[in-house]
Amino acid sequence: MDHSVHVGLGDRSYDILIGQSFESVLRLNGVGRKALLVGDSNTGPRYHALVRAVLEDCGFGCDAVVVPAGEATKSLEQVAALYEQAMEAGLDRRGLVVAVGGGVVGDLAGFVAASYLRGVDYLQVPTSLLAMVDSSVGGKTGVNLRRGKNLVGAFHQPVQVAVNLATLDSLPIREYRSGLAEVVKYGVIADADFFDALDEQVAGVVARSEAVLPFVVKRCCELKAAVVGEDEREGGRRAILNYGHTLAHALETVAGYGHWLHGEAVSIGMVYAGLVSVECSGFPLESAQRVERLLAACGLPTRPDDLPSWESVREVMASDKKAKGGVPTFVLASALGSVSHGVEVPEGVLASAYQQLRNAQGSSTGAPYGGGQ
Amino acid sequence: MDHSVHVGLGDRSYDILIGQSFESVLRLNGVGRKALLVGDSNTGPRYHALVRAVLEDCGFGCDAVVVPAGEATKSLEQVAALYEQAMEAGLDRRGLVVAVGGGVVGDLAGFVAASYLRGVDYLQVPTSLLAMVDSSVGGKTGVNLRRGKNLVGAFHQPVQVAVNLATLDSLPIREYRSGLAEVVKYGVIADADFFDALDEQVAGVVARSEAVLPFVVKRCCELKAAVVGEDEREGGRRAILNYGHTLAHALETVAGYGHWLHGEAVSIGMVYAGLVSVECSGFPLESAQRVERLLAACGLPTRPDDLPSWESVREVMASDKKAKGGVPTFVLASALGSVSHGVEVPEGVLASAYQQLRNAQGSSTGAPYGGGQ
Repeated sequence: MDHSVHVGLGDRSYDILIGQSFESVLRLNGVGRKALLVGDSNTGPRYHALVRAVLEDCGFGCDAVVVPAGEATKSLEQVAALYEQAMEAGLDRRGLVVAVGGGVVGDLAGFVAASYLRGVDYLQVPTSLLAMVDSSVGGKTGVNLRRGKNLVGAFHQPVQVAVNLATLDSLPIREYRSGLAEVVKYGVIADADFFDALDEQVAGVVARSEAVLPFVVKRCCELKAAVVGEDEREGGRRAILNYGHTLAHALETVAGYGHWLHGEAVSIGMVYAGLVSVECSGFPLESAQRVERLLAACGLPTRPDDLPSWESVREVMASDKKAKGGVPTFVLASALGSVSHGVEVPEGVLASAYQQLRNAQGSSTGAPYGGGQ
Repeated sequence: MDHSVHVGLGDRSYDILIGQSFESVLRLNGVGRKALLVGDSNTGPRYHALVRAVLEDCGFGCDAVVVPAGEATKSLEQVAALYEQAMEAGLDRRGLVVAVGGGVVGDLAGFVAASYLRGVDYLQVPTSLLAMVDSSVGGKTGVNLRRGKNLVGAFHQPVQVAVNLATLDSLPIREYRSGLAEVVKYGVIADADFFDALDEQVAGVVARSEAVLPFVVKRCCELKAAVVGEDEREGGRRAILNYGHTLAHALETVAGYGHWLHGEAVSIGMVYAGLVSVECSGFPLESAQRVERLLAACGLPTRPDDLPSWESVREVMASDKKAKGGVPTFVLASALGSVSHGVEVPEGVLASAYQQLRNAQGSSTGAPYGGGQ
């Protein structure tokens, strides 16, 4: 283990251990206990045997199940199938559910752990950058209904998060970049120094350099842990984690899941939130431009040429889980590292900021802010 | 409202209000909120309109859904259908799920409330004696898998429990008596004075007298609230609530749900636990006999003539949720009002106590302890 981050939540506290191998970060007492590993068709074949070997060394009796990769696997049908697998594997109240994969696997397996026998222990082994810095921290679990994402779930904290940075080596480049959107987000919402560090070392970050990755992942986990520790169940400040997400969720819905990866949609949403923040909350234009340039340097879309119509996006925003009576609320920045949440924005600003995103379409440079760099 | 009982669970604390009408016990602020009432085919037609009228006076916009009566309704399929109903009804994070009925409705609706949008508020309106004194207090929710009862669920505390004692008037006599088994149990496990009071006033209790019911229901809620307040998630002392339940669960499984009502099985299980306690934990024989006589006076079965074979019962006990490696554990009494939990009992004692239950079969009196009264 190279690093650890403590997530302070009273009797639900736990540690995130960060290292370069499963052996170095997996530390649980499994004597007399059963574990069920849940991976998807990408992560299961690649990592189950390795994780299983370490857990068996810890004393666990292990079974493993592989679910289809992709958002569609977060279904009630899959949850029911996993309950049966857990029974088959003999998991009792001392059992452990292990999520080996990205956000989809974590959300699904976490909800199973939260509800099987009214809750059993749950270990996160995130293998994507997005899961390492975001979804594996904070205890949100959930599955989708036909009507929308994460409409069913629970807050259920893991007993540990085991981050093996070596798993990032095999992550497809597009997925890795998608995770960087959330990394940049932490700088914008909570830590201007971290933003500066990312900006300076962006080449190393994009190249997954061992010299910078441990620091980057650790700092993101610390920042998220601090926010979650203040507001476990999203009554207040935790909402700042949704910077860029109001538009992102709408884009994902309108374009269909899979058109943009989550982080790609968040990247576009952060550019949009920056434009709105310049207009409404005193965010300096040069800061908004810096954020947009850093996202682009990470290889992320910022003003793509296939944005859907404003009308279709606005309609979906009205039914956002965080909307109040059809009025979407936003997290807005006033400076790098400083944001407010729950802000209602005038309709005219929402529409014109979206037009600015779209106006870049077809321009030869696609450069931010009318190419004024 | 005649009485209230506070259930102290930190920021999950709530009150049980006990009265003779819905108006007197339903007190929630519903301005701008949506509520979904869940009743079954017995309780929905009888009470939904009444409860709805009071909730609408509180400001709630209400929808109602009726599920089939009976244990089979506690299924994942029914849960999925209720999520859809909640979406239809427009429940957002400020929504309220209302359970109008007995334990089955409470367990089902409670799990929906625990998991819909990662948890919304939940109001218990228990209409059976069993639900009033037992299942509506403590926050256990759950549904069944094919392999067994309550294998999926959550701990989710209600925001309030509204007990309208007038609903007991229309409860079928057999169900009312079934609830009395849990009432007697509270005396045995936690309050000898309460046991004495029940013993003295058993005629009024059985007759559902308004002179005794408020006191009886309130005292049971107080006793359960005290146990739950000490041990919300059943790590320790909460297990004493399972007095009589190790055999009861096995009998329900072997005989098939519906052969005995839950309270009937608990009554038989308490006689059995009494016999084992006399043998193993110094429970006075005369105390065991008093418990058995009180259960019989409540019209409950104690040593029925259709008990299944010991072998079939013992096999099911081995897979009890609370069994440790196939060895069932018991709650045993040492005196009225005083019990220990997690006790492993020698196989010979388990078998011979069961034979004593069966030996009453075919005797003309069926009297306790060989008719030695």
